[in-house]
Amino acid sequence: MKKLRRSARLVDMTQHLLAHPHTLIPLTLFSDQYGAAKSSISEDLSIIKEAFEGEGIGLLKTVAGAAGGVKYIPLTPRDQAARFTKELIEQLEKPERLLPGGYLYMSDILGDPATLSIIGKMFASAFAEADPDVVMTVETKGIPLAYATASHLNVPVVIVRRDNKVTEGSVVSINYVSGSSKRIQTMSLARRALAEQSRVLIIDDFMKAGGTIQGMIDLLQEFRAKVVGCGVLVETADASERLIDDYISLAKLKDVDIKEKQIEIELGSYFPREGNE
Amino acid sequence: MKKLRRSARLVDMTQHLLAHPHTLIPLTLFSDQYGAAKSSISEDLSIIKEAFEGEGIGLLKTVAGAAGGVKYIPLTPRDQAARFTKELIEQLEKPERLLPGGYLYMSDILGDPATLSIIGKMFASAFAEADPDVVMTVETKGIPLAYATASHLNVPVVIVRRDNKVTEGSVVSINYVSGSSKRIQTMSLARRALAEQSRVLIIDDFMKAGGTIQGMIDLLQEFRAKVVGCGVLVETADASERLIDDYISLAKLKDVDIKEKQIEIELGSYFPREGNE
Repeated sequence: MKKLRRSARLVDMTQHLLAHPHTLIPLTLFSDQYGAAKSSISEDLSIIKEAFEGEGIGLLKTVAGAAGGVKYIPLTPRDQAARFTKELIEQLEKPERLLPGGYLYMSDILGDPATLSIIGKMFASAFAEADPDVVMTVETKGIPLAYATASHLNVPVVIVRRDNKVTEGSVVSINYVSGSSKRIQTMSLARRALAEQSRVLIIDDFMKAGGTIQGMIDLLQEFRAKVVGCGVLVETADASERLIDDYISLAKLKDVDIKEKQIEIELGSYFPREGNE
Repeated sequence: MKKLRRSARLVDMTQHLLAHPHTLIPLTLFSDQYGAAKSSISEDLSIIKEAFEGEGIGLLKTVAGAAGGVKYIPLTPRDQAARFTKELIEQLEKPERLLPGGYLYMSDILGDPATLSIIGKMFASAFAEADPDVVMTVETKGIPLAYATASHLNVPVVIVRRDNKVTEGSVVSINYVSGSSKRIQTMSLARRALAEQSRVLIIDDFMKAGGTIQGMIDLLQEFRAKVVGCGVLVETADASERLIDDYISLAKLKDVDIKEKQIEIELGSYFPREGNE
């Protein structure tokens, strides 16, 4: 056991808390590790708490009593989230993103760890109270986003496959109708990937009619799991055929003019209406 | 501009450095943000440097001069890496992981953010000097691991697809022969996903004969890209038909006895031979 000065403790405790979000850490863990009195650790934690909350990093919750400790809850302040999303929308509106079929090229954004971590933290903030056991997505493009969200919630990621792979063991498969293309498709999940009665947060990159997400919801019934939330990065605005209605989006694709190469995007339902002004 | 005390600065700077690995941060950014003299910021940084290096978090490199600043390099100490990997191997050797065909069920490990972050940091440590521009993997199971590695290197993730999706724009496809099943398969990558001459780090979860990785290497030639490293979580020990030989593995699957349900795994080439004792 090595003794650390307060300044070194602050650095190491900050690192430890950030690496273990949504995890109750007993004060004794820190006091043992640094050879410091619990009262000193408590003082350290109030300094960290003030800095975390003042700088918009997140909350530090203290749980009193013998089974108590401290828990870091990542939380993105609303104004930070809105500022970031507006910048993201500017990027998304660039005409060169337009792909045949009115799709947007987003793989660069969905592949950048710093951007994903910010978006993942925003979803983790929105669904922290929903207390999910796992984050679920369907392959492929939503996986890094689901992982980023799961990192901030400290829960596992479960990936629904579009085929049945031998390396997963026994799987549960369902057929579903893709809402936009109306094609019948298959999705499957390994039986052992998800415990029964799990609380599931669904995360995906893009939602048109919502057929894929509805498919995931149907699949989850086979596991007797409960969907506690649903978050998508971009939804399309044409909701006339929307299959699901309980979800949060960061951005909403209002209009795509393929001829004029114009893309119009606005803030999604993550932001209450007054935030759109 | 708000003034922060040293203790609050230490917490916030630690957070900022951890969130921006491999990024040169000018001292003026901190001194402007906190309303502190550059000399105070320098003192803060030497405290953080000592704690980061003493606690095995990573290096803090200072670059002098007008264009200078500070850069956090995540680095996992060898003994920490070996201890973690031995625990991981114990988990992997559990008989219930055995799947038909001699495969191992690893989706739980490949879905746990805390575990992935540790493994990703180990790969980022091993390949920090290789200076990759991107991390590449092929869908599906290696994606979270590739993303975790890329996070610690602060470079984008590029995902090779096993089909051609319309939402990616024009793609480059190649056929390759899966080394173990000897089947001809297709993989493709969007033309705009990778700049020419990129330095690429390949990350994957499992390697048998190496056909998939060889396929990625062939595909990269179409982009005139350079493979600067290759890391896999688990390789199989039977190297007689191995197609590639320049790679790092964390663990090596020595033997699978399907009848007796016994799995034998040892440390991989990440660890020099003496580390295996």
